[in-house]
Amino acid sequence: MSLSVRAARPGDGEALHAMMMALAASHGHADEVTAVAADFERALFGPQSISGALLAELDGAPAGSALWHRSFSSFRGREVMFLEDLSVLPEFRRRGVGQALLRALAVQAVDRGYPSIFWNMMDWNAGARALYQQAGAEIDDATCYCRLHGAALERLAR
Amino acid sequence: MSLSVRAARPGDGEALHAMMMALAASHGHADEVTAVAADFERALFGPQSISGALLAELDGAPAGSALWHRSFSSFRGREVMFLEDLSVLPEFRRRGVGQALLRALAVQAVDRGYPSIFWNMMDWNAGARALYQQAGAEIDDATCYCRLHGAALERLAR
Repeated sequence: MSLSVRAARPGDGEALHAMMMALAASHGHADEVTAVAADFERALFGPQSISGALLAELDGAPAGSALWHRSFSSFRGREVMFLEDLSVLPEFRRRGVGQALLRALAVQAVDRGYPSIFWNMMDWNAGARALYQQAGAEIDDATCYCRLHGAALERLAR
Repeated sequence: MSLSVRAARPGDGEALHAMMMALAASHGHADEVTAVAADFERALFGPQSISGALLAELDGAPAGSALWHRSFSSFRGREVMFLEDLSVLPEFRRRGVGQALLRALAVQAVDRGYPSIFWNMMDWNAGARALYQQAGAEIDDATCYCRLHGAALERLAR
């Protein structure tokens, strides 16, 4: 099989949205998703975009994606790359797609002058942990992720 | 004492950098900081900025800050606010400064049309946990934070 990775382009929103849905489903959070494909087109290719994406294809069929956005590290005082989602469609797992995406993302980060890539991982995801450790990542289990939204956000703002 | 919160403006880089240094020190990570005050000026007020900050003052003296940047949630398909640092100088803690900053940030998030604020917290930080829970935040202890930088990033990119 032939595996290739390319930058996402206008029209890829649907494929990228499908990858994110597969990722949400395999994490048991599909019911929390409100994004539609058009949101991805706008976020990636609209004016003032802070996002980018890579698409992996196996024999020309979309197999996985890496969706990232600009971020800022106060410790470094510099912009960094934040990897929002690394997704591989279930039928294409265990074929090196995730590894290829991560490597292509590292190339893009270095090319753009970013000193770091940051991302989140669920602590129970042994496959992801192995992939990231092999790539040389530091994994910090002591960090919690906090979210404030909807009614709670509006209540606090009142 | 009079507590007020205002948007940061050019020239505040030094005060904001000092707040971040105090935060890094109280987390035991001061040795990892490479940022200088000029980095904050550029990140906040330069062209293509994705960051913003609030400064809390007690009787006119800088007491705390909230540094945030634009982010993107793939599940929501929308931009969200990411709170990079919530800092209160040690001598001004336990006076409601953190709470006031969080509330002002929520107002700014709602005003800007952001559906959510996301941020990280160290799992051992009981004071922060209490503050965030009181504000209505969801805290997810199952998320790990991953970082790839320096030599490891360049090795992967080769």
